Amino acid sequence: MSKKDKKKIYKPKTISGFPEWLPEVRRAELLWFDHIRKTFESYGFCPIETPSVEELDAINAKGGDGGADVDKEAYVLERLHKEDGDKEARLALHFDQTVPLARYTAQHFNDLTFPFKRYQMQRVWRGERPQAGRFREFYQCDIDVINVDTLPLHFDAEMPAIIWEILSSLPGMENEKIQIRISNRKILIGLLEGLNIKQAEYVSEVLRSVDKYEKQGEEYVRNSIIELSLRLELGKEQGKKISNTIIEFLNTKNIANVKSLSDTMSEGITELSFVMDQLSHLPEGSVVVDLSIVRGLDYYTGTVYETVFVDDPSYGSICSGGRYDDLASNYINKQLPGVGISIGFSRLFDRIRAQDKLPKLGISPADILICLPEEEARSTMMQAAQDLRGKGYKVETFHSPSKIKRQLAYAEKKGIPYVWFPPFSGNSDHEVKNMLDGTQSKTTPESWDK
Amino acid sequence: MSKKDKKKIYKPKTISGFPEWLPEVRRAELLWFDHIRKTFESYGFCPIETPSVEELDAINAKGGDGGADVDKEAYVLERLHKEDGDKEARLALHFDQTVPLARYTAQHFNDLTFPFKRYQMQRVWRGERPQAGRFREFYQCDIDVINVDTLPLHFDAEMPAIIWEILSSLPGMENEKIQIRISNRKILIGLLEGLNIKQAEYVSEVLRSVDKYEKQGEEYVRNSIIELSLRLELGKEQGKKISNTIIEFLNTKNIANVKSLSDTMSEGITELSFVMDQLSHLPEGSVVVDLSIVRGLDYYTGTVYETVFVDDPSYGSICSGGRYDDLASNYINKQLPGVGISIGFSRLFDRIRAQDKLPKLGISPADILICLPEEEARSTMMQAAQDLRGKGYKVETFHSPSKIKRQLAYAEKKGIPYVWFPPFSGNSDHEVKNMLDGTQSKTTPESWDK
Repeated sequence: MSKKDKKKIYKPKTISGFPEWLPEVRRAELLWFDHIRKTFESYGFCPIETPSVEELDAINAKGGDGGADVDKEAYVLERLHKEDGDKEARLALHFDQTVPLARYTAQHFNDLTFPFKRYQMQRVWRGERPQAGRFREFYQCDIDVINVDTLPLHFDAEMPAIIWEILSSLPGMENEKIQIRISNRKILIGLLEGLNIKQAEYVSEVLRSVDKYEKQGEEYVRNSIIELSLRLELGKEQGKKISNTIIEFLNTKNIANVKSLSDTMSEGITELSFVMDQLSHLPEGSVVVDLSIVRGLDYYTGTVYETVFVDDPSYGSICSGGRYDDLASNYINKQLPGVGISIGFSRLFDRIRAQDKLPKLGISPADILICLPEEEARSTMMQAAQDLRGKGYKVETFHSPSKIKRQLAYAEKKGIPYVWFPPFSGNSDHEVKNMLDGTQSKTTPESWDK
Repeated sequence: MSKKDKKKIYKPKTISGFPEWLPEVRRAELLWFDHIRKTFESYGFCPIETPSVEELDAINAKGGDGGADVDKEAYVLERLHKEDGDKEARLALHFDQTVPLARYTAQHFNDLTFPFKRYQMQRVWRGERPQAGRFREFYQCDIDVINVDTLPLHFDAEMPAIIWEILSSLPGMENEKIQIRISNRKILIGLLEGLNIKQAEYVSEVLRSVDKYEKQGEEYVRNSIIELSLRLELGKEQGKKISNTIIEFLNTKNIANVKSLSDTMSEGITELSFVMDQLSHLPEGSVVVDLSIVRGLDYYTGTVYETVFVDDPSYGSICSGGRYDDLASNYINKQLPGVGISIGFSRLFDRIRAQDKLPKLGISPADILICLPEEEARSTMMQAAQDLRGKGYKVETFHSPSKIKRQLAYAEKKGIPYVWFPPFSGNSDHEVKNMLDGTQSKTTPESWDK
């Protein structure tokens, strides 16, 4: 190349927070998606997919589910060069699947059948500052059940059963010790009611503090309740009494031992007991009551879920959700309660990938590479490929006649487990070589079976 | 609700150009994706997925493949409220999968195995003004084979074979008459060379005019070549002669009858003949030579493809592509030739949907609804559901004890083909009802088979 012809080269790099995988990793990611989708569908959840964007006005009407800060995190779309007079609604990439679900349910209300059981596996975007382990573009895999006016508790129990089935058998996750932790917000709220605490600020501060119980510990919760009591002029003694009651409550492992102090609390205990009863077929320790689970969101009103790695609880929840009373009153004049749970897919997948636990897959999905020993064998090669594809095999054909050694090396590099030799001038039979054990034998496309 | 409590409701509506389907349509869309993916993989193509965005600088370095106008159509992301000092690269949603493929191949060059056969099925975004039949967010399903320095013609023939297999058997497309039309740009360019036409402007104007042959007809092409000849001072007589030669050429159906006027032309004829030879096993008329296919892009250098509905050619191409010499020289100092083809998925799917030809699927993916005749039957219901799921069936369980009639109506509405009655106080057997023919019979979860 002469100097004059030299092109300026723009060297591409990874965009921080936007993950991208090599083909063999993408194949494992698709295995995961297939597994999750199959399990969701095996419980009768139907798929929906919403556009990547919502109108900014629609997002603002609904607000986030609390997991995202709309103002700070939303990515808004701009056309590079707008023409004068373009007056279009402003669009923003969705930052969760809850706002889109609410909008979808309201918009298509008359065309949906309730209870509406839907799953949704899409990318969401959050324009946070890049941090280790945080993505700006990532997948969420959500299920929700929405009904009109009331929603049976049946579905609160179905959520953890599905999640357990998925997480305990995702390829590469089989040896992870995970645990789904469940509570019901009515219990703690009812406890405060029973203690005659009515100030909204007190209640929400206690919830926030209890939410940090796992990470910050007992003393933190105790102190923040005492401080809070002083600040809201309930007195130190009263504060101590309340904090003792709450700490004792949080340490109760068996809901049968929780004493109800109010109707709301009784309701919560009954609901949680029903849910746990329905899950008794799952392995010991897979789903447990944890009364410190509250989820930091005002949005939830009953059952709440979190899921942790038992050996690494500080990693935080990999799958969370709960029950809410009001999905979409900003969009429609209906009472739409629901219960849902969301797998933080990309973060989980990336953890297992980084720990080198994903199944080792070849670059090519092909089961067989058919060699081309000489140009004259091309039509035999193509025919064998079609025959084998017809039997359900995935088949690559080698593109040009070349040394068999080179063709074997190609199969090896791409991770193709069988190499096929069609008849050619040197051999009148089909032969197939098992790349794993090195054996080679005569065969035909009609008779061959892995 | 009192007046004071009345919330302001934001009534959601469809965003023009951003399609969204009801669950039963989304289920058909997933069937299509599964079918396409399975076929791509059966030829050994590996999956990749790139982020939804590219750096604007990277897009500008590469430019579009000609299908999109970067400046006018790119959607750029803006954070709603940037903090001072945020100096991040500007990001834009990709408007095709060619720019991302080029960037990906260059960036991961050392980790890829060549020939690199990849498929990619993602959304792309084009901020065009909304028009009937044009989407701003839509799926493309692409395959490309990239190699270093040279790429065997084998792959030029593989593309239409795969596309034919896919399009002729997409659910709902079985009765569509489609046709893949192939040419090789070297033939027409070589023809002009043979006619001693060397002005770059003349050549590219002729290509542009021939590209409109199908839509505008013979007279249009003839006149525009004569006009062009006058404008570039070749004279009217010469223009007439050239236009006659070109029109005669365009009407040649059999490449064996094309007379070569130059080396480039001979090369094109040889290549096209090889490709057609490899496709001779396909049904008559499925893949044909059409010398008027040029694709309007400078990008392509050899084989070019378009695909039309035979009964509605004015609808335009539903699947196009071709061979290019230089995928990524803007990103890497390597010669990377490739050949690829792209299915304009969403537009095609929407056509078949609007024509009501999609397979009729139920809202629920479930095969079976298990009824709950009374609360006492709940654990039997749940057990039967687990057993049947273990056998590979998709099973919904009814959520609350209620009249059987109501539960049957639910199955009917959701399109679930079998309704299952677990034993309860009124009946000690499992029974199953076929909703299609109305028959009902005793069974067990262990023995049942559709």
